[in-house]
Amino acid sequence: MRVLILGGDGFCGWPASLRLSAQDHVVGIVDNFARRRADVELGAESLTPIEPLTTRIAAWREVTGRTLESWELDVAHDYDGLLELLGEWETDAVVHFAEQRAAPYSMKSSRHKRYTVDNNINATHNLLAAIVESGRDVHVVHLGTMGVYGYGAAGVRIPEGYLRVRMDREDGGEVEQEILFPADPGSVYHMTKTQDQLLFGFYNKNDEVRITDLHQGIVWGTQTEETRRDERLINRFDYDGDYGTVLNRFLMQAAIGYPLTVHGSGGQTRAFIHLQDSVRCIQLAVEHPPKRGERVRIFNQMTEVHRVIDLARLVARLTVSPIDLPDNPRKEASRNDLFAENRQLLDLGLQPITLEDDLLREVTDIAFQYRHRCDRDKIPCRSRWVRDGVSPPRGTWAPPSRAAAGSRASSRAR
Amino acid sequence: MRVLILGGDGFCGWPASLRLSAQDHVVGIVDNFARRRADVELGAESLTPIEPLTTRIAAWREVTGRTLESWELDVAHDYDGLLELLGEWETDAVVHFAEQRAAPYSMKSSRHKRYTVDNNINATHNLLAAIVESGRDVHVVHLGTMGVYGYGAAGVRIPEGYLRVRMDREDGGEVEQEILFPADPGSVYHMTKTQDQLLFGFYNKNDEVRITDLHQGIVWGTQTEETRRDERLINRFDYDGDYGTVLNRFLMQAAIGYPLTVHGSGGQTRAFIHLQDSVRCIQLAVEHPPKRGERVRIFNQMTEVHRVIDLARLVARLTVSPIDLPDNPRKEASRNDLFAENRQLLDLGLQPITLEDDLLREVTDIAFQYRHRCDRDKIPCRSRWVRDGVSPPRGTWAPPSRAAAGSRASSRAR
Repeated sequence: MRVLILGGDGFCGWPASLRLSAQDHVVGIVDNFARRRADVELGAESLTPIEPLTTRIAAWREVTGRTLESWELDVAHDYDGLLELLGEWETDAVVHFAEQRAAPYSMKSSRHKRYTVDNNINATHNLLAAIVESGRDVHVVHLGTMGVYGYGAAGVRIPEGYLRVRMDREDGGEVEQEILFPADPGSVYHMTKTQDQLLFGFYNKNDEVRITDLHQGIVWGTQTEETRRDERLINRFDYDGDYGTVLNRFLMQAAIGYPLTVHGSGGQTRAFIHLQDSVRCIQLAVEHPPKRGERVRIFNQMTEVHRVIDLARLVARLTVSPIDLPDNPRKEASRNDLFAENRQLLDLGLQPITLEDDLLREVTDIAFQYRHRCDRDKIPCRSRWVRDGVSPPRGTWAPPSRAAAGSRASSRAR
Repeated sequence: MRVLILGGDGFCGWPASLRLSAQDHVVGIVDNFARRRADVELGAESLTPIEPLTTRIAAWREVTGRTLESWELDVAHDYDGLLELLGEWETDAVVHFAEQRAAPYSMKSSRHKRYTVDNNINATHNLLAAIVESGRDVHVVHLGTMGVYGYGAAGVRIPEGYLRVRMDREDGGEVEQEILFPADPGSVYHMTKTQDQLLFGFYNKNDEVRITDLHQGIVWGTQTEETRRDERLINRFDYDGDYGTVLNRFLMQAAIGYPLTVHGSGGQTRAFIHLQDSVRCIQLAVEHPPKRGERVRIFNQMTEVHRVIDLARLVARLTVSPIDLPDNPRKEASRNDLFAENRQLLDLGLQPITLEDDLLREVTDIAFQYRHRCDRDKIPCRSRWVRDGVSPPRGTWAPPSRAAAGSRASSRAR
């Protein structure tokens, strides 16, 4: 198949691109390098030494003989470029990672909130509108999040996207219907993913666009079979307070002798998946598209469920580290249970890598090997979910993908 | 109270501004004149001769001695201007009409879809983010639509926003929860209003922003007590295929001897409200704000329910007109029932004007009086909901509120 990967230079996008290429798909990478620019903004860097995309692509060619095409394009703001590419490149599927993906980053300030909404909604909508305008029957595989469900579902098992509910009819009877699971997002970032669901629902109903939405758990791990083949192919590893995910942050902290930071009580239960499984799931989704006219297909892309404090204890035991419990900056329940379905991807053949299998390798291969590159100042999470937090000074920040965001233009009415 | 009206020059915004001013509130109007620019784009014009905003404001002052302040500002793209205004003007409430509000317009072409999404989502989000950043406790009154509910609810009475449902628990028991009514929008325009609901839910939960969301039915009528006080205050009346609402289009068609256009069978049941009641509801919402910490308050702002074909027959009988039944360009059920709650606004004191009371006055005062201004070519609805429709040629269209939408900037990856 011919597959375009939007955001194909990112943490999940790059290993997904390699995976699909290794499986004999023809892969094109689209990226605006917003994630690399966010590193510049935050003064942060991947723990692992990632190469520029051109070097990565050249290394992949050298190692495998396979070619990856690439384009620098802002999907959210260059609609004509995207439309032209969809037509000319004759893609069968688009994997859509082109969204700002960090909850803490999305809550840093008003500007970060606005950037996240503007980028994520316009990126998804431009893609859908371009597919319709192109007249091509392109399958969209989107990276969503388990966070669309919220975490307060009162003991209800989280299904794969759709929930059967019963309600009262006007005539006194009862009716059972299947609805999209009620959204309860915990950050502006998560909220944009719930808005994406409405975009998908509409374009699927109105234009029969074929869509698979992958509600991903928290990804852990860094490398995949493909990224391990050459150091120039290495994937990024974020440990900073904005982009670092919880387990990767624990591993990094352990490696440098920093106490493991558990915000609040650590009683929150979350869903997890190893990066290697994540790219396998994307391959499975691409290779098993829904039929035309089928409703949006939703998979829960997660393999394990853990309480945050239990993960911290596990890493603490493996690495002999202390645990620190600062206040939780997020507005969320201090404790929750989580029961979630993930049958569909298992039925397609996914064989999960468990924490038990692979955690120690991650500690030694990545966290310990590259710990000299760590900047300890970047570890604390400084985003505040509510407005008593400190916003950066005005005028010092520009969104990563757009140089000028429109000048002040108000004036008296005509 | 001090009230800012975003979109205060529009069809509902202008009479709402006058109503609130007449009731001794201090009113400021913010508008970017997108609606007037859409007239230019479409080569259409209000049937009634509306004056420029400055003339309207001067006339209101002359007639009542009351002052309306105004600012030309694009809420979706001039965040800094909006933030400054919220702080300096010290507003208590913001009534938010600053969205593209026509379903057919939102479906005309890919560009119109994208303009609608970009404008509506960024306008709502900028407002919410600015309120939080300002630190002010501002009450947001938003104009939503009955269309967020969809129309296929299988005999379930449509509640005011929240629906009680029952679902199975993991432990075998059952749990009852109140959820946002499942969204089922019928156009890109309606979809943006369902996305707005998610924005409101999040900012209400995270930042305790006080919000009243008015899910309005189809508005009919043109004038209110206030707009009737001087011809320079006259409100707009749209009859074109994009912005004209169904009943106003019937009245116009009757006045010029054009067959009443019922798309499809006319079996769709819709909710209606007279413009005069609409502005009263807005006043009621402004004067009865939710408490801080209260969840988003949702009112169904509609007073009557009618089947489209019945309305056509009523107007046909009053005016001795024929009825025409062209194909329906919308993708929707050919027939539906609609049961909807509207108790909350009635409880606050709304006394509805019925079609029976006022329809004949509308026919004679507006449609017949101004029929010489009608351009018959603008009557047909040319939007197609699916992609076999004709899109306008590229490069000839710019969104009404933004001159340049970003140039083609893709290039090879670095």
